[in-house]
Amino acid sequence: MTYCVGLLLNEGMVLLSDTRTNAGLDNISTYRKMFTFEEPGERVIVIMTAGSLSVSQTTLAQLREAIEDPEATAETSIMLAPTLLKVAEIVGDRLAKVREEIDHKLSAAQGASASMIVAGQRKGGAMRLFLIYPEGNFIEATEDAPFLQIGEHKYGKPILDRVVKPSTSLSDAQKAVLLSMDSTLRSNLSVGMPLDLAVIEKDACQVTLRRRIEAGDPAFRAMSEAWSTALRDGFARIVI
Amino acid sequence: MTYCVGLLLNEGMVLLSDTRTNAGLDNISTYRKMFTFEEPGERVIVIMTAGSLSVSQTTLAQLREAIEDPEATAETSIMLAPTLLKVAEIVGDRLAKVREEIDHKLSAAQGASASMIVAGQRKGGAMRLFLIYPEGNFIEATEDAPFLQIGEHKYGKPILDRVVKPSTSLSDAQKAVLLSMDSTLRSNLSVGMPLDLAVIEKDACQVTLRRRIEAGDPAFRAMSEAWSTALRDGFARIVI
Repeated sequence: MTYCVGLLLNEGMVLLSDTRTNAGLDNISTYRKMFTFEEPGERVIVIMTAGSLSVSQTTLAQLREAIEDPEATAETSIMLAPTLLKVAEIVGDRLAKVREEIDHKLSAAQGASASMIVAGQRKGGAMRLFLIYPEGNFIEATEDAPFLQIGEHKYGKPILDRVVKPSTSLSDAQKAVLLSMDSTLRSNLSVGMPLDLAVIEKDACQVTLRRRIEAGDPAFRAMSEAWSTALRDGFARIVI
Repeated sequence: MTYCVGLLLNEGMVLLSDTRTNAGLDNISTYRKMFTFEEPGERVIVIMTAGSLSVSQTTLAQLREAIEDPEATAETSIMLAPTLLKVAEIVGDRLAKVREEIDHKLSAAQGASASMIVAGQRKGGAMRLFLIYPEGNFIEATEDAPFLQIGEHKYGKPILDRVVKPSTSLSDAQKAVLLSMDSTLRSNLSVGMPLDLAVIEKDACQVTLRRRIEAGDPAFRAMSEAWSTALRDGFARIVI
């Protein structure tokens, strides 16, 4: 499994993914699930993936090929697409096509699929955050629903439901996604460190902060312990 | 959906279920999902159900019929079964049989199933807590895993993972299951008030506390708000 989360806030976007991939519990590896495409100051796109590694790797490889193709057009390259909406469409179409091809090779029972989060901004445009379903259709984050999650999303949702609003600061937002990930890591073995964190400040059109958080990272561990303590203290203070 | 949780603690057992049933989002009703069978001082059994209402209602009705049957034996009646293990077996067999019958009437796509939590103690025996799968097989709560959940269990698991141990007091345990339910209610529309709470003190062999918590219950609301405040305060104090 996987857990990826993206927030769309007034001040920018905050993205976090884990890196655990498993084909069965005895076959676990670390794979990056966050991919950045940028032309700093002009365009930034971050894609996070959940689901079958064969589907997401092939999709990403094809997206990259299309960018590098000397005949790339605004219809095929996410770096030339005129809007972020078009970027989401290109990613969605590509994802659905790859999934169909791979599904075709597998029996129905094994059916492979993947979903993606696409976050980005191009110069002069708005920041946009999309969740792309395995079928290629997508939804977009809004003021009322400022976060999107893919993968093992339920354990980490309660904290986001309570604290994330469009007005949340980027620093609080990083705390929120890390605590959301922390709850998921504790409750589901198939989500694992290291983590990839990215922050895209509004109108920077580039990734303004990029951090890989390794297992045993002292700051992450301290935060996780402080949160446990806060929860236990809060729990102890409540009277029923 | 449904959320039911049961804790097996040194001092007793604590059980909580919601009451929402839905066949589609536009067809929501309230159904009790917690059922008590007791001969006070001799034997207490509480069953909680999740899944298809047709499966769980039929199973419960058949379990009741078997108890009332003048020819009831230790093999058929959960009130005569010599051990709680045998109770779990009777419930599991009945559940699997009903599921098969109903599945047979439905197409594969609609397949109906249900799972159950069975908690109980008979005089002279130990308290036992089982989770019965749709196929009739079951697992039992232990010291290392003192809680079992059925239905929409993920949102409410992080709090249980952090605070529930066999040594947890019955009062803290009630707080823990109510907060676990509170997180679930907030994050999933298909779990809904009112709630049914039951406490079985060790060796009482009867339900020692039974409470229905209605929507708008002032104590539950106060607890829910205090927890929100505690989470927000804890969140605000953490430095990353």
